Amino acid sequence: MMSDTPIIIDALQYNNWSESIFQQMHEGGVSAVHVTICYHEDFREMVENVIAWNRHFERHSDLIFQGRCAEDVRRAHEEHRTAIFFGFQNCSPIEDDIGLVEVCYQLGVRFMQLSYNNQSLLATGCYETCDPGITRMGKQVIREMNRVGLVVDMSHSAQRSTLEAIELSERPIAITHANPHVWHPALRNKSEDVLRELAESGGMLGVSMYPHHLKNGSACTLESFCIMLARTAEVMGVERIGFGSDLCQNQPDSVVEWMRNGTWTNERDYGEGSESAAGFPDQPEWFRDNRDFVNICAGLRQVGFTQNEVKRMAGLNWLEFFEHSFRKKQT
Amino acid sequence: MMSDTPIIIDALQYNNWSESIFQQMHEGGVSAVHVTICYHEDFREMVENVIAWNRHFERHSDLIFQGRCAEDVRRAHEEHRTAIFFGFQNCSPIEDDIGLVEVCYQLGVRFMQLSYNNQSLLATGCYETCDPGITRMGKQVIREMNRVGLVVDMSHSAQRSTLEAIELSERPIAITHANPHVWHPALRNKSEDVLRELAESGGMLGVSMYPHHLKNGSACTLESFCIMLARTAEVMGVERIGFGSDLCQNQPDSVVEWMRNGTWTNERDYGEGSESAAGFPDQPEWFRDNRDFVNICAGLRQVGFTQNEVKRMAGLNWLEFFEHSFRKKQT
Repeated sequence: MMSDTPIIIDALQYNNWSESIFQQMHEGGVSAVHVTICYHEDFREMVENVIAWNRHFERHSDLIFQGRCAEDVRRAHEEHRTAIFFGFQNCSPIEDDIGLVEVCYQLGVRFMQLSYNNQSLLATGCYETCDPGITRMGKQVIREMNRVGLVVDMSHSAQRSTLEAIELSERPIAITHANPHVWHPALRNKSEDVLRELAESGGMLGVSMYPHHLKNGSACTLESFCIMLARTAEVMGVERIGFGSDLCQNQPDSVVEWMRNGTWTNERDYGEGSESAAGFPDQPEWFRDNRDFVNICAGLRQVGFTQNEVKRMAGLNWLEFFEHSFRKKQT
Repeated sequence: MMSDTPIIIDALQYNNWSESIFQQMHEGGVSAVHVTICYHEDFREMVENVIAWNRHFERHSDLIFQGRCAEDVRRAHEEHRTAIFFGFQNCSPIEDDIGLVEVCYQLGVRFMQLSYNNQSLLATGCYETCDPGITRMGKQVIREMNRVGLVVDMSHSAQRSTLEAIELSERPIAITHANPHVWHPALRNKSEDVLRELAESGGMLGVSMYPHHLKNGSACTLESFCIMLARTAEVMGVERIGFGSDLCQNQPDSVVEWMRNGTWTNERDYGEGSESAAGFPDQPEWFRDNRDFVNICAGLRQVGFTQNEVKRMAGLNWLEFFEHSFRKKQT
């Protein structure tokens, strides 16, 4: 029997993982989280991150387990645990080797961004000045990701590359963590063109609670955030929206510096921050951690969403997307 | 409905894989083969071998698929295909990193030898002059292999290490491809002490059809081979015996040279061969390839085994062993 509490799915987190965070997921009734296991790592370095997660799964099996398919979300919900789905924010772990796409899938990876801020071997990042679109290798890799059941994620990619990925991918893609550019004009946020094409193709947007993606940053109000969702639902439809908090809990500022700079630059890049505000920004008071999805659900009711619409955005939309996305295509 | 033909399982092959060999498996009614995917490779090189197999699975899905559990053998038998189970003949792919044991399991690896002829980080090989037994890391790795469901294989290990592995392992181990030393005193063949301890612990012996393991080599008669099985069954019990052909079909002699020498020596090692007979030996005429298990089954009936006993040794014993060995231990 499935319990009557809503299924909550968060499509992006990158926390400094610990038992207390897993406990917060449990307290917040979060049934599934897509966690980032790579920003700049190569394949072998990524495998070490899988090993670190295997240890979490072993030590905290009362709270979490590795998710591989939609059914695992339902199981997590019934068992009051959290299914952890792996994803990459960059394509660095597949190096220049298309065969690694399936190997990563076999290790449980279910999302991969084709680029992270910069140009990659596959696509252009949102901070490049010119976006020539999906590369030759990118087209091959999208086809391979479609075949094995690894979701294309364009959260940090530039516009032309994103539109081309939506067009080229036979299976709907995701923007796991971003907000509409019209609400807050961060480079990472997405134009209405992108959101419309994404929705029409059956793709999903995970709305972000990361302060650099929010209107007025850390001071953003819950009401403003929820009205943004109402406007976005008018563009995309309620069915195409979910959560993608981009929660980076308990991370030291050295981590955001590494996320932005990896090993690619000798100068310091501040990404969405600035020299005077280089570290992680403070979370808005209505979303501090995994226990606060309940606040957002209440806020969404306040701005006029029905309980069923809230349930869809809180988890059922992502669950449906998982159902159609993660199975290997039958040849 | 399961068809009435016997299930045939071969617990070791290392062929130069091609469609025609997969077709021979099909014609021979072979439901499962444990294939070697590594001799000396490190982790990253091993992953390239997984990728090569993924391509075989994609291109020849009418004939083969990747096996991960005992149920896959039954499915292969019903669908007249062959389930391919991965294994390593050495522990080189886990390097010095115990976390890689579970990662290899996640990629589908189900057998790993703790050493191949030489001393390894885990155990001693059968060609070393002194065998100090299972190492400190070896004890940890056996425990980890037991936990995740990766079978300890001691086919190329020395006697003390083998006896200690049988003793230390909480789950029964395997000697996937070797014969009794008393029948043919090759260094690789096993003493009655080892065979008895292996059987008493619930482990399995896969009898080898590789000429260097056979009495009179390539000229070994089917009758001699089958009488050897009858004697071995008296020592171990019929239930503890299966096939482990060690078939190395269509391989150039450069491959056996690489198997023996890897990158560990500047002098040339001839392993079970010699300077004057350095290449692969010819197969005995009664076992040329996967279509010839039927000859062995007939030979076993000739020396007095019942049809049920033949069925056990041809596949059911390994199937039972797979059932108990490949599932992750519940904590």
